[in-house]
Amino acid sequence: MDVKAYMADVGQRARQASKVIAKAPTQQKNAALTHIAEALSASRSSLLAANQQDLAQGQQKGLDAALLDRLELTPARIDAMIDGLNQVASLPDPIGEIADLKYLPSGIQVGKMRVPLGVIGIIYESRPNVTIDAASLCLKSGNATILRGGSEAFHSNQAIAQCIQQGLKKAGLPSDSVQVVETVDRAAVGEMITMPDYVDVIVPRGGKGLIERISNDASVPVIKHLDGVCHVYIDSEADPEKAISIAINAKTRRYGVCNAMETLLINEQQAAGLLPKLADMYLATGVELRGCDRTLSIVAGMNPAGEEDWYTEYLAPILSVKIVADMAEAIEHINHYGSHHTDAIVTENYTKARAFLTEVDSSSVMVNASTGFADGFEYGLGAEIGISTDKIHARGPVGLEGLTSQKYVVLGDGHIRQ
Amino acid sequence: MDVKAYMADVGQRARQASKVIAKAPTQQKNAALTHIAEALSASRSSLLAANQQDLAQGQQKGLDAALLDRLELTPARIDAMIDGLNQVASLPDPIGEIADLKYLPSGIQVGKMRVPLGVIGIIYESRPNVTIDAASLCLKSGNATILRGGSEAFHSNQAIAQCIQQGLKKAGLPSDSVQVVETVDRAAVGEMITMPDYVDVIVPRGGKGLIERISNDASVPVIKHLDGVCHVYIDSEADPEKAISIAINAKTRRYGVCNAMETLLINEQQAAGLLPKLADMYLATGVELRGCDRTLSIVAGMNPAGEEDWYTEYLAPILSVKIVADMAEAIEHINHYGSHHTDAIVTENYTKARAFLTEVDSSSVMVNASTGFADGFEYGLGAEIGISTDKIHARGPVGLEGLTSQKYVVLGDGHIRQ
Repeated sequence: MDVKAYMADVGQRARQASKVIAKAPTQQKNAALTHIAEALSASRSSLLAANQQDLAQGQQKGLDAALLDRLELTPARIDAMIDGLNQVASLPDPIGEIADLKYLPSGIQVGKMRVPLGVIGIIYESRPNVTIDAASLCLKSGNATILRGGSEAFHSNQAIAQCIQQGLKKAGLPSDSVQVVETVDRAAVGEMITMPDYVDVIVPRGGKGLIERISNDASVPVIKHLDGVCHVYIDSEADPEKAISIAINAKTRRYGVCNAMETLLINEQQAAGLLPKLADMYLATGVELRGCDRTLSIVAGMNPAGEEDWYTEYLAPILSVKIVADMAEAIEHINHYGSHHTDAIVTENYTKARAFLTEVDSSSVMVNASTGFADGFEYGLGAEIGISTDKIHARGPVGLEGLTSQKYVVLGDGHIRQ
Repeated sequence: MDVKAYMADVGQRARQASKVIAKAPTQQKNAALTHIAEALSASRSSLLAANQQDLAQGQQKGLDAALLDRLELTPARIDAMIDGLNQVASLPDPIGEIADLKYLPSGIQVGKMRVPLGVIGIIYESRPNVTIDAASLCLKSGNATILRGGSEAFHSNQAIAQCIQQGLKKAGLPSDSVQVVETVDRAAVGEMITMPDYVDVIVPRGGKGLIERISNDASVPVIKHLDGVCHVYIDSEADPEKAISIAINAKTRRYGVCNAMETLLINEQQAAGLLPKLADMYLATGVELRGCDRTLSIVAGMNPAGEEDWYTEYLAPILSVKIVADMAEAIEHINHYGSHHTDAIVTENYTKARAFLTEVDSSSVMVNASTGFADGFEYGLGAEIGISTDKIHARGPVGLEGLTSQKYVVLGDGHIRQ
């Protein structure tokens, strides 16, 4: 197979389909989503069979247990995909919304209409449910999609693709509106990220390594989600009860998620009172603690943290802990060592809360709330395609709106410019 | 001079300064703008002297008259720069604005705070007034700026830079908030567009060639303004009077601007009635007409248009004219040959107006108004740094808001996530 020619063809077909889906009425897009859900429901056995093929190959290749777990489709996971489709169908359609339509001194009316980006390329790893998540959000936002999942999930993704095709067909939308790449050749990714004529934006989903490689090589804009080195800072004026429940929740709710706290910063006035209690709770739940020199003198059972720890996204039951003199030191630490993802302060002080919100340069900044809330659903976006750690275009959890652009509309009555 | 080391130093200093200017209060930023205006006013003679040096060198090098005109500073142009600074000072500060702050089911409040992008690199050609335009918008939006103007304007830009430095100093802002690159070595541009650690976005201002080169080579995001192949479509149901005044205004108001009409599309039902009148008016004002075969049979004095003409941004008193069968053909022509900049329909038909707004894929789409309105001032943005023909981040005229990002702010009262 000539991958270059194949991907150029996929791109051209996506571009053509994007013109149709961009102007598809809401009802038709919703019909496609519910028809895809029905097709998934009717194809449970073939989906599970295809997934078994992938799992068997994965086991032969010696994939690790975590990867095999992500790869696996279960009846419950198929249900979750179906629910997701129905939920996206129930979200308001962002396309065509006209905002800020105002009369200007010249007499013209100017507003901004929300429009699709065009063609969105999604590159992801072994989780087959991403195929449905990504396709549904792109479809609802009027974009054509090219999906390129990990080779380990090839058969599962092709089976899901068949359901998508059935749903699109039944709704009367072009089959090229959603294309799942039909080759495992890695060169397909290289082509996809360097076709600016056919692809408007790339959304990579996966580990930091994948995303960095794609960003470096892409000539198409990339909505990046790099790492989440998230902090909670317990201020001198923190309410101790709130501090403890937030610090515990932010770390222990789930370990492998990007919005989990990786470093706890604690004001020196609070350290002696709170650290021993917190340490007991963390150690009891099996969290390894790595502390700065000052914490080691307060709490037993902690390991010393090295410079590298402050930069690390553990995604594991490990927490680094540092005592700071004041909020300024905490903010400096966060802006220097953090990944500009999500950071929280616990304080009762109004002025410090306000300063923290302004000065911490992260996609989500919180006061008296757990970093675990950084999520498209919790923010009311309805769904998310990822969390952007970029400042350009979209920042933080990216929902339907992040997959759109706005164009100016100008309404006149024969107006000419002087 | 080691350009690589020099630019890395400029970048590092900009990054440091960006942290200070990002949190500078509105009053301090406005004070800097008015102090820069005062410094320009007090330095008229040295500005004109520096400009004379550039003009003399330009004449020696044999620069053409248009370029020398753009290069020239006159007392009126200095006045315009001063007015521009005062006007930007009077605009509302976008930074810190919190939008859409809402309570969510979990009890947290979530909103979006507008924040600076960080460091903005501006690359432009020979017009020294861009130094002030760009610096003032970036400063007001809380960004640090690196300015790299054309080598022909080197002395003028350095003289302007001194005024900027005086103004920043007087307002107590870091002098590195605005840096004018002090070398004419072209390698400086290559460095600037490949320093993602120090530069967050590049705004190139100049011809299509410059912008394409920069976009191709940049590893930093670029807000692109490519060409403006703008159309007016006169529909079968156009009001003839509106059609004539808009078609004449869109072409003849100014020829060298990106929002000037380059192709007139006219419905076949209107052609016999309107084209002869329009042709008389265009020819009387010295506009050369290049038409499709059908127009040639209606109007004398037109030249035949070739395929290339439909793609061309003339920026000159030349207009290509095509007769189309219906709106669908007009929209297809616009989306195929146009540059997605600004396109207008003249019609009294409600349904067609609505369809045109939705289906034309351009940064500004207009009904019964001249394309000449596509401009940040006319749209009420107060000022513009350029017009983006991209869909990512900013589209259409880019004002202060296009130089910012939004971060999520989350306010809680000890909330933890279930």
